Amino acid sequence: MLDHEVNRFNGIEIEAAHAPEDPECFAGELAAALAAWEEAGRELVWLRVPIERAALIPVATAAGFRFHHSQEDYVMLVRRLRPDALVPHYATHYIGAGGVVLNSRGELLVVSERHRRSARPYYKLPGGALHPGEHLVDAVIREVREETGVHARFEALVCFRHWHGYRYGKSDIYFICRLTALSDEIIRDEREIEECLWMP
Amino acid sequence: MLDHEVNRFNGIEIEAAHAPEDPECFAGELAAALAAWEEAGRELVWLRVPIERAALIPVATAAGFRFHHSQEDYVMLVRRLRPDALVPHYATHYIGAGGVVLNSRGELLVVSERHRRSARPYYKLPGGALHPGEHLVDAVIREVREETGVHARFEALVCFRHWHGYRYGKSDIYFICRLTALSDEIIRDEREIEECLWMP
Repeated sequence: MLDHEVNRFNGIEIEAAHAPEDPECFAGELAAALAAWEEAGRELVWLRVPIERAALIPVATAAGFRFHHSQEDYVMLVRRLRPDALVPHYATHYIGAGGVVLNSRGELLVVSERHRRSARPYYKLPGGALHPGEHLVDAVIREVREETGVHARFEALVCFRHWHGYRYGKSDIYFICRLTALSDEIIRDEREIEECLWMP
Repeated sequence: MLDHEVNRFNGIEIEAAHAPEDPECFAGELAAALAAWEEAGRELVWLRVPIERAALIPVATAAGFRFHHSQEDYVMLVRRLRPDALVPHYATHYIGAGGVVLNSRGELLVVSERHRRSARPYYKLPGGALHPGEHLVDAVIREVREETGVHARFEALVCFRHWHGYRYGKSDIYFICRLTALSDEIIRDEREIEECLWMP
């Protein structure tokens, strides 16, 4: 029987790194195992395929697996054994943060992006997406510094907006934060930012 | 030359549904195209493989592609042509919402989960993850109703907490909301909730 573990939700977990390397051999063992697990009343089968074993992916999709998610070096596939089994969602949101940065003269820091969607230039608050594992406060301070060169201190969360239909059909929450500038000199990120200024 | 489009970031996009079905034929065209695009100074190559064409995935990984993300019916792969080309992140967060639901006697609605992490039972606020495309307010009202049977009205956002290292290494933001109960009778979701009560 294919190497596997049973999880606390009555599901089966297979790590393809420990499965037969040969696709035909894997196909045979998978078919036998799926029949046995269905018979035993299991709900879902999870199959994690490391990128080095990508040859096993077509075997799995031919056996009725669907993609659940991927990271750079693996794909996770899942197959329902019970038709109404609940497949939990993967991450659904991008998170971004933008800064209302004021200097000692009460001027507002604004930028104009190089890769903007509209042909006409417009100013916006500096900001961007959180890096994986990064906290909101750290992210907004970093984005302001990267885009404009201005060092700033986090003061408060102002508001956020939640919207759907962002990249690849996922959703996005964007937090607007109040920051106080700790430096005044603008050192623009030339690759991303076309213009950056203190707006009186 | 392999069918492709050039995007506004100087990247190449390939839709594998329009590529040769035969893996060997695809491998030859891909190798030739990659060499030409690298020569032309392109930055990234994006390859979207629908699940029906999963046989092309091992060809792509052998050609240096890495996984970017997947949805149920496709995998998106990406390959850098310039070593320092920026690969934008995919969705990084799960979003959840929990309700502080009070009834007319000032009692608090609490639940105890069936699949909890600790052996000892404990009470928590009803709540859960947002469905794809769902708004925060709708989600917390739905989760309260699904878990407890109680209909409730959204009043205000109380706070949120942001943490990292959730499922598959992604992050999570959980919003706590104030709700007023519009009904009193508890109809527990027996599959997920072990106990549910109005706590005086």
